[in-house]
Amino acid sequence: MLAGMGGGEDDLGEGVRATRVTRCEGGAADEREDRVAHEEPLEIQLGATSLAVVMRTPGHDEELALGFLVTERVVASAGEVAAVRHCSVVSDPEAEDNVIRVTLADGVAVDLERLRRNLFASSSCGICGKATIENALAAGPPLADPTRVPLETLYALPDRLRAAQAVFDETGGLHGAGLFDAEGELLVAREDVGRHNAVDKVVGWAAREGRLPLAGHLLLVSGRLSYEIVQKALAARVPIVAAVSAPSSLAVDLAVESGMTLVGFLRGRGLNLYGNPERILG
Amino acid sequence: MLAGMGGGEDDLGEGVRATRVTRCEGGAADEREDRVAHEEPLEIQLGATSLAVVMRTPGHDEELALGFLVTERVVASAGEVAAVRHCSVVSDPEAEDNVIRVTLADGVAVDLERLRRNLFASSSCGICGKATIENALAAGPPLADPTRVPLETLYALPDRLRAAQAVFDETGGLHGAGLFDAEGELLVAREDVGRHNAVDKVVGWAAREGRLPLAGHLLLVSGRLSYEIVQKALAARVPIVAAVSAPSSLAVDLAVESGMTLVGFLRGRGLNLYGNPERILG
Repeated sequence: MLAGMGGGEDDLGEGVRATRVTRCEGGAADEREDRVAHEEPLEIQLGATSLAVVMRTPGHDEELALGFLVTERVVASAGEVAAVRHCSVVSDPEAEDNVIRVTLADGVAVDLERLRRNLFASSSCGICGKATIENALAAGPPLADPTRVPLETLYALPDRLRAAQAVFDETGGLHGAGLFDAEGELLVAREDVGRHNAVDKVVGWAAREGRLPLAGHLLLVSGRLSYEIVQKALAARVPIVAAVSAPSSLAVDLAVESGMTLVGFLRGRGLNLYGNPERILG
Repeated sequence: MLAGMGGGEDDLGEGVRATRVTRCEGGAADEREDRVAHEEPLEIQLGATSLAVVMRTPGHDEELALGFLVTERVVASAGEVAAVRHCSVVSDPEAEDNVIRVTLADGVAVDLERLRRNLFASSSCGICGKATIENALAAGPPLADPTRVPLETLYALPDRLRAAQAVFDETGGLHGAGLFDAEGELLVAREDVGRHNAVDKVVGWAAREGRLPLAGHLLLVSGRLSYEIVQKALAARVPIVAAVSAPSSLAVDLAVESGMTLVGFLRGRGLNLYGNPERILG
């Protein structure tokens, strides 16, 4: 069953906001009502400590927080989290939806000081692409996922994600991320003003469903593939990551080193494979 | 004179990286050499303290660091910075280009502890869009910039930025930001895998040229307008900010409140004006 973006009006209301706009075409100007993607800050607390503030599109906040903890490797697994809920003790009612508190399971301790220290700065070789990748690889062994997916399955993914993206068509301001099984069936789709948030929401959904690690799954994002996105997908152990647009050099390097199959420019019946193409062509 | 992205081959070499790709079309696969946008970490140090690590496209690093300090309001003005240079004392030669050290002017002190504390968390009303905007507005009075720019000038901007964007056409992976004067002349254009970095590079260039604050200037970004971009433009005091794509709700709200003219969907001979349209139509 598809846990979609919520076609219901309530969900739609959360993802978009009405605004006044003056539309100009040529020399004519016309004032009207328009809709824009909703953006609000979310503070993620670990116990009573503020861990991060992310600018996100409201909705699926628990998934966002849980996914963030997993993909940023604040916790070693989703099982270390006991509860994720909105914090109701805030000084202003307007802020009520924008603070989320994570409670860790009994006996689990997170080294907040380690989180605060810059992971890069403590790297032995200084800061460079190689050190950044080694840091991401240190969390686990390379992906040895035997999943095989035919080209035709990949070609079909973008239309399926777009069909599930209710808000993008309306505002043009939201990134989408979709999780698929190896047959190309869409399991969940999430949207956000931040590409990384959309991925975190998808991973958070998978965590709640008990699907982590994501062996045998495909992740598709609507835009570009940066290092950050590939690093998050790797933390969730996704073997095949695809995007409608271009990857960066560090995204390619991390995919190659980690055993991930990276797919770029997935449009129509064409795509680029960067690293580990045997899952598609083998 | 245009301080462009550097049409020279050396600059181009910094912005892109060669990679192997398997290009698939229909059922056919073909291995070839391709180019992707270059992404590497940059550590920005204030004195000997690590301030931030940003994932960026190498090139114009001094501008990026200086712009970052201004737009994130680490310094009150560019005059508080005495020097910005690459750090040559690193343990690995590969990291040499990825650490940049900022030296403050004599007598200038930055409260690092304040920077570390979450600005949102200390807001009186908790965390919400309103508090976020109030925080951004606290840095200065609303923009009362009397600049007027005709519609035709705006319509001409995207082609001028694209003409200066050497790398985008080649990799599809870089965001562009361009700074224009009120006549629509392009003063500088910068590219980066991160939209916010491209803006910081432009602001850093302006700081070095002694052009801050940017009264009477226009900023154009190639993608979407998030809160972060508008906040950075406001810190540099740009009165008119335009984008080829959509703004977010919080970007619109901040523009309206700060007296900024926000232009979205600037394509062909059409555009949307969000907030303070009188600079264009007045």
